[in-house]
Amino acid sequence: MPSLSPYLNATPYQKARYMTRKGNIYSVVPDRAPEEIFETLAESGEVRIERIISDAHASPEGFWYDQDESEWVMVLEGSAGLRFDGEEEVLVSKPGDWVDIPAHVRHRVEWTDPGEKTIWVAVFY
Amino acid sequence: MPSLSPYLNATPYQKARYMTRKGNIYSVVPDRAPEEIFETLAESGEVRIERIISDAHASPEGFWYDQDESEWVMVLEGSAGLRFDGEEEVLVSKPGDWVDIPAHVRHRVEWTDPGEKTIWVAVFY
Repeated sequence: MPSLSPYLNATPYQKARYMTRKGNIYSVVPDRAPEEIFETLAESGEVRIERIISDAHASPEGFWYDQDESEWVMVLEGSAGLRFDGEEEVLVSKPGDWVDIPAHVRHRVEWTDPGEKTIWVAVFY
Repeated sequence: MPSLSPYLNATPYQKARYMTRKGNIYSVVPDRAPEEIFETLAESGEVRIERIISDAHASPEGFWYDQDESEWVMVLEGSAGLRFDGEEEVLVSKPGDWVDIPAHVRHRVEWTDPGEKTIWVAVFY
């Protein structure tokens, strides 16, 4: 009789293989996103990789991100304006633009693209 | 007399701001890359974020990556074929396709796009 739970009989290598996951960063983007969407693509104790979908969202008036973790973030589709506390200039980010933000560097999303979804990949570490 | 080294007088917050770095993942791709190009975009003790540029490269015959770290990797431009030890099927990866590979899951790059550079972003964690 074949095992009903092959996982139980798997070798450590096979178990690791089962944990190999995949996806496409552009897939299953909803037509409308009333709230920003945050999805964890991978994580361990020290790192979290997220896909973020913004639909013309911006940080609330007067709000600053002030994070305990560093964040490396890249725009893949759409566009966004990032502001850093103490700077006048807004950093306009287009597909492929990345920024590595040390912990506690206060920043906010001034705007995201009004015409299409903005897809980000972010690594918190 | 203005300070010759404003960094020395900077507050901790200003020092962190100086460490905020940015770039574009598609920028400055050489016309030809005789060897694969690996660039570290960000790192800390626990994580390393790399841009990798392949120019029709493949892993050497019989070679398998067998890494102590997990790797989350995404193709941004071009295409690639990934093979996992013990599997016949090659995982064809196109722009936006990502795979999260646990430590010690043996894999190799069977091929990368012969017609254009393949740009990857990889997070080792």
